[in-house]
Amino acid sequence: MTVQAPPGGVQEIAPRSGVAFELLRGQTLTVIDPQGEQVADLLAFCRDDLGEVISSGRTLDYASRIYLTTGDPIYSNRSRVMLRIVADTVGRHDFLLTPCSADTFRIIYGDTSPHRGCFGNLAEALAPYGVTPDRIPVAFNVFMNVAVDGQTGALRVDPPRSRAGDRVSFLAEEDLVIGLTACSALQSNNYAFKPIHYAIT
Amino acid sequence: MTVQAPPGGVQEIAPRSGVAFELLRGQTLTVIDPQGEQVADLLAFCRDDLGEVISSGRTLDYASRIYLTTGDPIYSNRSRVMLRIVADTVGRHDFLLTPCSADTFRIIYGDTSPHRGCFGNLAEALAPYGVTPDRIPVAFNVFMNVAVDGQTGALRVDPPRSRAGDRVSFLAEEDLVIGLTACSALQSNNYAFKPIHYAIT
Repeated sequence: MTVQAPPGGVQEIAPRSGVAFELLRGQTLTVIDPQGEQVADLLAFCRDDLGEVISSGRTLDYASRIYLTTGDPIYSNRSRVMLRIVADTVGRHDFLLTPCSADTFRIIYGDTSPHRGCFGNLAEALAPYGVTPDRIPVAFNVFMNVAVDGQTGALRVDPPRSRAGDRVSFLAEEDLVIGLTACSALQSNNYAFKPIHYAIT
Repeated sequence: MTVQAPPGGVQEIAPRSGVAFELLRGQTLTVIDPQGEQVADLLAFCRDDLGEVISSGRTLDYASRIYLTTGDPIYSNRSRVMLRIVADTVGRHDFLLTPCSADTFRIIYGDTSPHRGCFGNLAEALAPYGVTPDRIPVAFNVFMNVAVDGQTGALRVDPPRSRAGDRVSFLAEEDLVIGLTACSALQSNNYAFKPIHYAIT
């Protein structure tokens, strides 16, 4: 597939890399899968108090659902709403697994010289904001398709359901520092690394 | 049901309370449900570096399963094995949800004067060890029975499958600080608050 330059106002995250930026209260972040079947790991920290961070455990508990979509809030570890999903053309994302890391590639894929993964990319991108690696929690994994067998509890990483141009929009309810990647794990992206696009409006 | 005093060497955690203690490498912690249908939230921090803490996201990813039992390791946020489940008479525990808190009772139960929950109990018990509330992650919720619908992603808190005397044993693979509760949330415990027993061997 030919890679198109992103349209005006849209930023590109290169394959297997990550970025961090501020997202202010009232702004909307739209995460776009330009080619389809690509995952983006999303983190959010309270800009003015980095101890407050998105929490899978709080969010899933209050939603009573492991799959989130339009209308669902994403809560912090202090049970405040940090982001709200305001648009979603896919409807299947993961909030169970931590960002892939060198250890992920070592343990799951058996790599001997592993890539630093989304975890390493996020740690580097977030460092200038004062976020330390140990503070990186379970990410909201946009477009990641993790199926769970309700009987056995087995989970399986399937190809994302996203097609080219699919997108999810998040409204910030606080001033935030965001970390965002084009995911580095083969399984998550159906065995091809692609870019991620995003826009702030 | 009459409450029996715990047998020798066994400690009791009173209903809706929590404790913290050191568990050294090579020691085994056994968590016992003395009356049945009672949940215990379990946390573990590296004693000599509190930035290292149990991670649901790492553990579930490496296990490829949301339900853990005998033989399964519990990983830290640094992908090291902190605990290993070496015995389990129940086989159904939760590693998706954070400890119940005042916010849980406010948001899920509509309480206007909410109990501080396992979160508050853990925060108080762990404070002398230097653990701050923001560092409390998703707990390994011993005996908690969270069913997940694989199609819709809906999760449901069901009564624990544990009967009186059921137990789970965890072998420490590092020197740890442990937080442990007798859970304070009605749903988790089939609407009756009971004690939890534990022993270190």
